[in-house]
Amino acid sequence: MAGEEALRARREKLLGRNMSLFYEDPVHLVKGEGVWLWDADGKQYLDCYNNVPHVGHCHPRVVEAICRQASTLNTHTRYLHEGILDYVERLTATFDKSLDSAILTCTGSEANDVALRMAQAVTGKTGVIATDFTYHGNTTAVSQLSTRMPPVGGYGGHVRHVPAPDAYRPLGGEGGAAFATAWAVKVEEAIASLQESPFGFSALIIDPFFANEGFPDLPENFLAPAVAAVRKAGGIVICDEVQPGFGRAGTHMWGHQKAGIVPDVVTLGKPMANGHPVGGVVAGAETLNAFRKAFRYFNTFGGNPVSCAAALAVLDVLEDEKLQENALDVGAYARAGLQKLADKHPLIGNVRGSGLFFGAELVLDRAEKTPASDIATRVINGMRERGVLMGKLGIHQNATKIRPPMPFSKENADLMLSTLDDVLGGL
Amino acid sequence: MAGEEALRARREKLLGRNMSLFYEDPVHLVKGEGVWLWDADGKQYLDCYNNVPHVGHCHPRVVEAICRQASTLNTHTRYLHEGILDYVERLTATFDKSLDSAILTCTGSEANDVALRMAQAVTGKTGVIATDFTYHGNTTAVSQLSTRMPPVGGYGGHVRHVPAPDAYRPLGGEGGAAFATAWAVKVEEAIASLQESPFGFSALIIDPFFANEGFPDLPENFLAPAVAAVRKAGGIVICDEVQPGFGRAGTHMWGHQKAGIVPDVVTLGKPMANGHPVGGVVAGAETLNAFRKAFRYFNTFGGNPVSCAAALAVLDVLEDEKLQENALDVGAYARAGLQKLADKHPLIGNVRGSGLFFGAELVLDRAEKTPASDIATRVINGMRERGVLMGKLGIHQNATKIRPPMPFSKENADLMLSTLDDVLGGL
Repeated sequence: MAGEEALRARREKLLGRNMSLFYEDPVHLVKGEGVWLWDADGKQYLDCYNNVPHVGHCHPRVVEAICRQASTLNTHTRYLHEGILDYVERLTATFDKSLDSAILTCTGSEANDVALRMAQAVTGKTGVIATDFTYHGNTTAVSQLSTRMPPVGGYGGHVRHVPAPDAYRPLGGEGGAAFATAWAVKVEEAIASLQESPFGFSALIIDPFFANEGFPDLPENFLAPAVAAVRKAGGIVICDEVQPGFGRAGTHMWGHQKAGIVPDVVTLGKPMANGHPVGGVVAGAETLNAFRKAFRYFNTFGGNPVSCAAALAVLDVLEDEKLQENALDVGAYARAGLQKLADKHPLIGNVRGSGLFFGAELVLDRAEKTPASDIATRVINGMRERGVLMGKLGIHQNATKIRPPMPFSKENADLMLSTLDDVLGGL
Repeated sequence: MAGEEALRARREKLLGRNMSLFYEDPVHLVKGEGVWLWDADGKQYLDCYNNVPHVGHCHPRVVEAICRQASTLNTHTRYLHEGILDYVERLTATFDKSLDSAILTCTGSEANDVALRMAQAVTGKTGVIATDFTYHGNTTAVSQLSTRMPPVGGYGGHVRHVPAPDAYRPLGGEGGAAFATAWAVKVEEAIASLQESPFGFSALIIDPFFANEGFPDLPENFLAPAVAAVRKAGGIVICDEVQPGFGRAGTHMWGHQKAGIVPDVVTLGKPMANGHPVGGVVAGAETLNAFRKAFRYFNTFGGNPVSCAAALAVLDVLEDEKLQENALDVGAYARAGLQKLADKHPLIGNVRGSGLFFGAELVLDRAEKTPASDIATRVINGMRERGVLMGKLGIHQNATKIRPPMPFSKENADLMLSTLDDVLGGL
C-alpha cells in the first residue's frame, strides 16, 4: 500500500491533478491475458469492463501481427502500401454496400472530429444534434457535443441536445412507437432550431446503442422516425460505433445494424485494434470525397502499416474464434443470471443490454425507479475488492457497466454473478 | 507498373480521391531498416525524408519494447501503471525545470488541440497567433491555424497570422536585431488586434525552428522580443516541437532551447515513439492543472503502457547511440557538401538548417532570389528516380527538405550529395 501511495504522488506530480482513476482503491495493473488482469501484488481480476482489448488482453495473434509489421516497415499513407487497402476492404465488407470507403485515424475522437467535418462538407452547414448525456471524444470540436463542462469561451452555439432516450422511463410515459415518435419530435424541434440559426443543420450524431446514456433496450425501429426527419431536412446521420461495434452487441456486427438503420457516416475507435491506437471513419465514397475536397486531411500515423496489421488481426480473430456469436450467447446467459439476482435483490430495477454490453440499473424502489447512484458506486468498489472489475454509467450514473473482452465465457459470467450476489447481499 | 496502377485504383476506391501521394511515380514500400527503404520491386532507397522513424526504420530496440509490452499488458491511465511515470520523468528531465509535467496523446494534432485549450484555461481568452505558413495539425480546432484552405463555416475569427520569418529575405530588408524587432512588431500588432476583439489574446503558437516555413537560419535571440511582448500581454508561448525536437537540430534536444527561449507549453508528436502513434504536451504543473480543472480530458489510448514503452526506447536509443551528436556532426558535413554544390549549381540560392533538418533553397537567380518552385519539384522527383527520397517545403515551396532518420551517416550524406549533383546537372 505504501508503494501505491508513492505511485499516486508521483502520478499527480508528473501527470497533474484531476486525472481520474477508477475505484476508491485504484488498481495497479502489471499483466493481462484474455479476460484476466493481475496487479502488482499478484492479485487476479476478472475484467468485466474493458472493451479496448476487444479479442482479449494481449491476444497472441494481434501481438504477433504488431511485432511482425513493426519489424518489417512502418510508414505513412503518402507511400503506397497494401496493408491499409486490405484492411479497409475487409472492414467495409461488414457494412451496407453504401458504406464503401474509409479514413483511418488514431483515435475515436479524431474520427468524430473528421465525421463532423464530413457533415459540413456534404451539407455546407455546421449545426449538430446530439443527446444530452453523450460523449463522443476529447478534441476541442467534439467535446462541444458534451454537456458535462462548459468550455472556456463558451459553447459554440451550433449544438442542440435532445434528451437521451430512456426506455425504463420513456418520454411521454409510453413505450413502443409512441416513445419513438416523441423522441423524433425532439429531433425535429432541434432541426428547426438549427435551421433558424446562422449554423443551419448538418448532422445528427448518435451512438446507435446509446451506451453512455445507459444502453436502453429501445423498441424496434425506434430510430427510424428520427432518421427520416434528419434526411428530410437534408442532414446526415453519423453513428458512433466506438462502443457497440465489432460484434459486441452479439446480434449484429454494428450497433446501427441492430437498430435497423443505415447511417451516412460511421465512426470507430477503442476496440478496433485491441488497444493499438487506431480509429476510423467509414462513409460512402461521395461523402468521403466531399470531405477530402473541402478539407485537406493527412494523419501521419493514421492507417500506418502496423496499425492496419493490428486491426486486421482483430477482424481475423473475431471471425475465427466466433466472438460475435460468443457475445450473443454469453451475454444472454449473463443477463438471465442478472435477472435471477433481481428476484433476490430489490435494488436491481432493470436488467438490460445486448451481447457483451449489459448491466442492471440500481434503484432505491422499483415503483418510483429512484436511481441508487451512490449505492452503485459502493457496488463497483465492492466488486473491485473481490477481484471483479466493472464500471457504472447512464443518465443517473446508477447502471452497472459490464462490457468485458469478447472471449468472456459462461464460467466468467458465473463468477461475476456470484460475486455481485455477495456484494449486493453485503450492502 | 501494372501492379502499381491497380494499387492506385484500389486506393482511390477505398480511401477516396484527393488523398496525396508523394512523387509523380509514387513509391510502393514493403520494407525498412535504419536509413533504408525497399519497394515492391526490390529497389533500395536512401531515406532522406522521414523523421517519424526517428532512430531508424524498425529499430530493433523499439520493436522489442513494443513486442514485450504488447504481450504483457496494454491498458489505459485510469489504472495505475509505472510505464507512463517512468517515461514522463525521463522526458521532462530533458526540459527546463519549469516544464515538469505532461499529458500524453496519440498524435501531434491532439497535442496541439490540448495546448490551445491550456492557453484558454490559463488566460481565460481564446485568441491565437500563428505564422501564415505554418501547419500544426489536422483537428478542427488546430486546422483553424492554417491559411491553406478556408473551412466550411469560415474561420473562427480568433486567429491572427504573422508573416513567417524568412531570414533569406528578412522583414524590413535588414537581418540581425532589426529583423527580430520588425517581427516582434508584427506579433505586437496581432496581440493588439486580438485584445480589441471579443476573443482576447491567449497564445502565440510557433514551431521554434519554423520547419514548414522553410527552416530559416534566424539571428541569435530572434524570438526574444516577440516572446517578451507575448508575456507582457499576459499570453503564453506554445512551442510545437513535432519537427525540431528529440535532438534533430543537433545543437540541442529541443528547438526552443536552440532558439534560446523557455516556452510555457511544448507539444510533441511524430518522432516520439519511432512511428508508434504517440504525441504529448509538456507544461508546468500549474498550467497543466489549470487545463485539467477547466476541461475534463481523458484519452483512451494516450499514455498506454505499449506507447510509453516505445517512447522510452526511443529516448534510450537516442542516448546510447549518441544520435543528437550524430545529427550535429553529419548535418554540418552535409550542409558543407551542399554549399560546395552551390559553387557548381547557381540554382542553389541558400543552404541552411541545423543538424539533420536542412536543405537548399532553389532560386532562378541569386540576385533577385526568385523561387524555383517547379524546378524543386523536378529535383525531388529526379532524386526519387535515382533512389533518394526527399521532399520540398517553405513559403515558396522551393526548399529541399532533408530530414532523414537520425542514424544518417556521412557516407549516406555523400550518396545524397552525389545524387543531387547528378540531378541538378541533368536539369
